[in-house]
Amino acid sequence: MNYVLACITVFHGGAKEVNVKARGRAISRAVDVVEIVRRRFLPDVKIKTVDIGTQQLAPREEGATPSNVSTIEITLAR
Amino acid sequence: MNYVLACITVFHGGAKEVNVKARGRAISRAVDVVEIVRRRFLPDVKIKTVDIGTQQLAPREEGATPSNVSTIEITLAR
Repeated sequence: MNYVLACITVFHGGAKEVNVKARGRAISRAVDVVEIVRRRFLPDVKIKTVDIGTQQLAPREEGATPSNVSTIEITLAR
Repeated sequence: MNYVLACITVFHGGAKEVNVKARGRAISRAVDVVEIVRRRFLPDVKIKTVDIGTQQLAPREEGATPSNVSTIEITLAR
């Protein structure tokens, strides 16, 4: 709900677009945030784009292989 | 990796499109599956559309309120 409130605050501040980004297991929460914002609070807000991708993370230890993490970027617009 | 293998099998069977759907916390796994399929195994496969939404679930008990769950549907095409 903190992220929901943050989105609403930015829109109420006059923004026309808000980007919601997440990585890894937080991706499902980003989708929850977007759905709650547009269904419960701001019905005039539409999903403009949804992009998914992969980010390569530097290895934690010397010599380890880099790991990949999935990302999502959702753009909301009113 | 079972879902990755399933996607690859469908494409190898001649399909032009594959839909990957998930709900709730499995959404991040669906994104992982799509990213692994297109980055590691089938580079000619593109993400055609990504749709997010909400599904209302019937209450588990009599008289309880229905719950909402986020959904994602990713369409891959080659």
